Amino acid sequence: MIGHPAYPVDPWCLVETRVDPAVLASAESLFALSNGHVGWRGNLDEGEPHGLPGSYLNGVFEAYPLAPAAPGCGVPEADQRMVGVTDGKIVRLLVDDQPFDLRYGRLHGHRRSLDPRTGVLQREVEWTAPSGRTVRVRSWRLVSLTQRAIGAVAYEVEPVDGEARITVQSELLANQPAPEPRNDPQNDPPAEPVLVAEEHAAEGTRLRLVHRTARSGLRVAVAAEHRVSGPDGTATAVEAEPDLARLTVTAPVGAGQVLRLEKLVAHGWSAARSRPAVRAQVDAALAAAAASGWPGLLEEQRAYLEEFWARADVEVDGDAEIQQAVRVGLFHVLQAGARGEERAVPARGLTGPGDRGHCSYASELYVLHVLTYTAPAAVAQALRWRHHTLPAALRRAAGLGLAGAALPSRTIDGAECAGSWPGGPAALHVNADVAEAVVRYTAATDDLLFDREIGLELLVHTARLWLSLGHHDPAGVFHLDGVTGPDEYAAVADDNLFTNLMAQQNLRAAADAAERNADRAVALGVDDEETAAWRDAALHLALPYDDLLGVHQQADRFTGHQVWDFEATPADRYPLAEHYPPLQLHRRQVVQQADLVLALYLRGEAFAAAQKARDFAYYEALTVRDSPLSACGQAVLAAETGHTALAYDYLAECLLVDPASPDLAEGLPTAVPAGGWIAVVAGLGGMRHHGDTLSFAPRLPDRLGRLAFTLCFQRRVLRVEVVAGSAEYTLLEGPDLDLWHHGEPFTASRQAPERLAIPPAAEPLPVVQPYGRRPVRRRWSADRETVHEE
Amino acid sequence: MIGHPAYPVDPWCLVETRVDPAVLASAESLFALSNGHVGWRGNLDEGEPHGLPGSYLNGVFEAYPLAPAAPGCGVPEADQRMVGVTDGKIVRLLVDDQPFDLRYGRLHGHRRSLDPRTGVLQREVEWTAPSGRTVRVRSWRLVSLTQRAIGAVAYEVEPVDGEARITVQSELLANQPAPEPRNDPQNDPPAEPVLVAEEHAAEGTRLRLVHRTARSGLRVAVAAEHRVSGPDGTATAVEAEPDLARLTVTAPVGAGQVLRLEKLVAHGWSAARSRPAVRAQVDAALAAAAASGWPGLLEEQRAYLEEFWARADVEVDGDAEIQQAVRVGLFHVLQAGARGEERAVPARGLTGPGDRGHCSYASELYVLHVLTYTAPAAVAQALRWRHHTLPAALRRAAGLGLAGAALPSRTIDGAECAGSWPGGPAALHVNADVAEAVVRYTAATDDLLFDREIGLELLVHTARLWLSLGHHDPAGVFHLDGVTGPDEYAAVADDNLFTNLMAQQNLRAAADAAERNADRAVALGVDDEETAAWRDAALHLALPYDDLLGVHQQADRFTGHQVWDFEATPADRYPLAEHYPPLQLHRRQVVQQADLVLALYLRGEAFAAAQKARDFAYYEALTVRDSPLSACGQAVLAAETGHTALAYDYLAECLLVDPASPDLAEGLPTAVPAGGWIAVVAGLGGMRHHGDTLSFAPRLPDRLGRLAFTLCFQRRVLRVEVVAGSAEYTLLEGPDLDLWHHGEPFTASRQAPERLAIPPAAEPLPVVQPYGRRPVRRRWSADRETVHEE
Repeated sequence: MIGHPAYPVDPWCLVETRVDPAVLASAESLFALSNGHVGWRGNLDEGEPHGLPGSYLNGVFEAYPLAPAAPGCGVPEADQRMVGVTDGKIVRLLVDDQPFDLRYGRLHGHRRSLDPRTGVLQREVEWTAPSGRTVRVRSWRLVSLTQRAIGAVAYEVEPVDGEARITVQSELLANQPAPEPRNDPQNDPPAEPVLVAEEHAAEGTRLRLVHRTARSGLRVAVAAEHRVSGPDGTATAVEAEPDLARLTVTAPVGAGQVLRLEKLVAHGWSAARSRPAVRAQVDAALAAAAASGWPGLLEEQRAYLEEFWARADVEVDGDAEIQQAVRVGLFHVLQAGARGEERAVPARGLTGPGDRGHCSYASELYVLHVLTYTAPAAVAQALRWRHHTLPAALRRAAGLGLAGAALPSRTIDGAECAGSWPGGPAALHVNADVAEAVVRYTAATDDLLFDREIGLELLVHTARLWLSLGHHDPAGVFHLDGVTGPDEYAAVADDNLFTNLMAQQNLRAAADAAERNADRAVALGVDDEETAAWRDAALHLALPYDDLLGVHQQADRFTGHQVWDFEATPADRYPLAEHYPPLQLHRRQVVQQADLVLALYLRGEAFAAAQKARDFAYYEALTVRDSPLSACGQAVLAAETGHTALAYDYLAECLLVDPASPDLAEGLPTAVPAGGWIAVVAGLGGMRHHGDTLSFAPRLPDRLGRLAFTLCFQRRVLRVEVVAGSAEYTLLEGPDLDLWHHGEPFTASRQAPERLAIPPAAEPLPVVQPYGRRPVRRRWSADRETVHEE
Repeated sequence: MIGHPAYPVDPWCLVETRVDPAVLASAESLFALSNGHVGWRGNLDEGEPHGLPGSYLNGVFEAYPLAPAAPGCGVPEADQRMVGVTDGKIVRLLVDDQPFDLRYGRLHGHRRSLDPRTGVLQREVEWTAPSGRTVRVRSWRLVSLTQRAIGAVAYEVEPVDGEARITVQSELLANQPAPEPRNDPQNDPPAEPVLVAEEHAAEGTRLRLVHRTARSGLRVAVAAEHRVSGPDGTATAVEAEPDLARLTVTAPVGAGQVLRLEKLVAHGWSAARSRPAVRAQVDAALAAAAASGWPGLLEEQRAYLEEFWARADVEVDGDAEIQQAVRVGLFHVLQAGARGEERAVPARGLTGPGDRGHCSYASELYVLHVLTYTAPAAVAQALRWRHHTLPAALRRAAGLGLAGAALPSRTIDGAECAGSWPGGPAALHVNADVAEAVVRYTAATDDLLFDREIGLELLVHTARLWLSLGHHDPAGVFHLDGVTGPDEYAAVADDNLFTNLMAQQNLRAAADAAERNADRAVALGVDDEETAAWRDAALHLALPYDDLLGVHQQADRFTGHQVWDFEATPADRYPLAEHYPPLQLHRRQVVQQADLVLALYLRGEAFAAAQKARDFAYYEALTVRDSPLSACGQAVLAAETGHTALAYDYLAECLLVDPASPDLAEGLPTAVPAGGWIAVVAGLGGMRHHGDTLSFAPRLPDRLGRLAFTLCFQRRVLRVEVVAGSAEYTLLEGPDLDLWHHGEPFTASRQAPERLAIPPAAEPLPVVQPYGRRPVRRRWSADRETVHEE
């Protein structure tokens, strides 16, 4: 999945065979471990060299005052940025008093591998110190999916060619200096430390640091417990100061002898609780982890993941690199959401500080979309977090002069962090995107309690927003004017089709949920007049259409704009927004990322097949994919409209990463591999889920011999296996399920798999990309090696 | 003109009879003296108390780095702000060592008056010091219209009730502390002094200070010469330090004796010249002024203004307050432009630091509009400045991906200072507005040299901008998408009618000018293909129209937007932009200021009369006048469509000022009284100037018995006198002139005045303003006193 010789292809594991300083930070993002609550970047155990060191706790941020671009209300007063917390994963090594550092001495072997089946990052290295002594170092690291406060490290040192004095320093380190994130041109944070020390302690083999963030006032505690085994003469000592707590182990270790350290790290934070309470919280987590012990944590982790993969594995025969990428990608999607528990899913999960740690609509549209069918409990948790933020969203809507809730376009704790009007407040589609996730989750799980306690209220308040935002024209058509859709190159337009279609679903779903939960709806002030108004607005929502071209318009008047001059745009001027002023972009037909095309997938039931093909062809020729989120929707629609090879190219674009990307260095944008899963399952697999109906229309590209995927749906587990001419549907758990295959209904049952033939593909409408923006072709080659060609 | 008891009505002079601290700063703006090069705010001679002290030199600014709201090109890197220069008008007084300060002792009388016929601000005050000694102080101040570097003060002190030791301190003071301007929410300038001292000198009765602005590096020199007369024992001394030079005069002055000081102050600045050169420049100016002496300066000033008023006076019988306001307002318009000489006309002239001293399109559309018919030489100078800035505008257009020139929406030296995209770069209409001023000036003066040297190039480069900005649709219609017109509540729209109509005129004028000056046009690369393309684009420019409503659209889709809920908007929520977020405003039908209606005036020949009436009625009901520029266009169209009383209300809104306005405190927005002149002459007088044709359609409101105005046109001077039933046209200078009166042609000649009857008015189409936004009715009352009623 990584186009770099140090990262060989493996069907399951992410493997690294040497350390390339040029891609170190990207590797740290890809080797990051997280459970959605605690995140440890894949830094080397010894802390240095590093690209960007970091440990994160979901929800811990610092506030930075914003200079508003223009006076006026509706503009946030402060930005929020996820900040690194006390780093508990550091284990430093000295060999005969020489620090173990890959930049010095000689490295004989280096191998790291992250196995999505065990959830453990394993490392083996053999190193000769400048003094000449050679040691073998092995480490294992995990962030527990079963004990959410816990990260753990096991660390072994073994001299190879004679006795050495080995010193191991296990640290908790706060306010670690780190390079500034790249994506902050305007508001450079102040240089002073983010964490203010409150308490430091070290006793026996136990360490603890407590801090508070300077402005946001969040209390963070990190504590560690150790277990040391080594030869006779092994001695330990501890020390603590405000930003550092350290256990030092020293031992004379003979050749073939092993010094082993097991380190359990507990993390806790709170905006409200006192220092003793937060301290007690990490002590308790540490006690529980110690009771499990390192072997227990390993086994819990393996069992958790075995269960996950049994419900969620994706098998791809014929393209080992994609096989690896889809599994590693799905593992990161799981890591981002697994144990968030009423916190946001940040854009980069907890893999790095990119996007300032904000959560945006992409979490709902991509990450929660995938988790709905693979780890649905995580979806309920993330949407509970959105539910918690409703009071802020209600206040924000009122500030914007709107009814209902206006969820923020970028946030950590629920407060809007996007300052600029065209991109921030106008991007109201986030509300319908959250509603989409609610609708999808509820329909996919039949979680009636969630529907009643969480879903209803989210749907009602967002529906109210749309009704107050829009207006009827004299002909009775309902318009939503002056909004920005996902395509940020077309800010502030009237009747953005994506927004209107998503709002339409939102309005109807709110009315349906109110009918299902009539008593609760009454308590929210919903009456028949209101649900009727929602249904009426939904029925009459404007869907701009160009009669001459026979295609939908991305927004009113869009197809009347001048087409961007793609031929005159050199390759090095992409992404366009970094090289052309808004005045150039926003009055042209040029699409940053799938916008209308994404609606063709998410609201596919609202379009005739021939219309989808025309719309896809029209927008395909305008879409430059300046956002990595774009390829997912294009992959799905390419597959649906018969462009299977193109779909596969886009699928690969979602899943394969460029380690030289400065963006990847700041964390993995989880929505992108999530989009890769969608490209596989909804693209090649042709899965569609509208209302209560689950349907498939699988079709493989020539390259693939077999595609199989497993998913959860309405308390069933369903496995779909696709080969060239047919697909087999196997119900692994649950009662019979009515499904559709290429437009024909059938029933899947646990009795026997259902094998159905795939009808021949019709001739597709030709499509073309903008000049110079064709995706990399992913071709079949004789020896099945990956070939990248333009 | 000032609704405050301390400012009585006078047919010519602005008079102040007491000092009200609450309106002191506004009075300083209104009593400001300027010649367009030097500006002295109307501060009290003794410097304090003050609202906002200041002396300005046109073009002297400091640069402040801007934090861009969003990354991307096309955004300026620095803001420019007009800064106060060394203040030469200060004359402090001590009576028996007690400082003369209105806040202490007792004031028996205070009167200031600014006479537009003499250009002198005169002051008389009688004051008893806390010690009990009473003095009479008289001062006269002018900023010379004939010697542009010169300001001058005459100052007399006379003890009333016994001998006093009088001390007068005449100062040059740099880096005077001043309150921050109100309108800078985002970029507070640093607190350090703006002017860096370079030289200070005092010898005999002569003072001199030389400074440089810290970042923009402009050298500023101010020097003063004095003439002192007083009783025996009068002694003088001088001193100088980096930021202060002072002449001190002391004398024992008996009752009835007078100590008199005459102070001549010369100002100079340069971005390029050396310290000795700038110093020589002010020394030379001072020598010339000294040769004229105070009486000479007074006489030159009077003669200059006598000539001006002979060509420009406006007489209004029946409303003394309006009579005063239109004259004082026109005097300020003259002051803003008279001697700018290849510098900008800032939005506040040189009356205060408001709008940061920037020049915007309002200078061309309002101020130069008026000067074209009253002081045309000043217009040529201001447009020569725009011509000087073309190289920067050509670079800026290239940065925006456009051909031709993109003149800045706000600037001091030609560099764009507006950072925010919707309001700044998208407000491209400034280019057509400058072209409008070129077309108007050229047609009104037949200045062929200007046409050839200046006008042609401005027109060609702006026409090129429009051609590159626009595109033809498949039907051949030419569109200008994604721009912002004068109405800032409707940012970034397609085919803004105002912009399109002004661009249409721009394109045609460029083609015409190229044909008139074929050789110069060839040198600019203009060929027949290009002029044909301009004419074609002009011919096919989109003019959005709503067939259902039978009105033009302010921009494409505008009439499809929801109408703002005016009934639900309390009076204290205006101006709307300070209380509602852009998301609320920009998707609604609500008009900040006349936009389409202004086009109905400026491009009136493009509309049928009945269409204008329908369009005016439609937009009148949506226009909230949140900009003081709005009422002018509304006055003109109200008059044209038969709403004479409404026109008069709007005329009064342009001309009468509110001294409590914090905005007025920072300087007089010159475009507003200029709009008042337009409301009188084009509104009540019905003057239209399209192409070479000058026409009138005068009609008086009931209140006025007579209206007379004089103007310059094509080397003639024409006087128009309107009474209830007829108008008389008198050609005061120049050959016969073909004119139109209420649609009928006639010829004015110097032989005899032409008196023509005014036809009866037709029944107008009813109009209504938004709820709560009706202008103050200016009613007739029995004793002809002004009555303000809601």
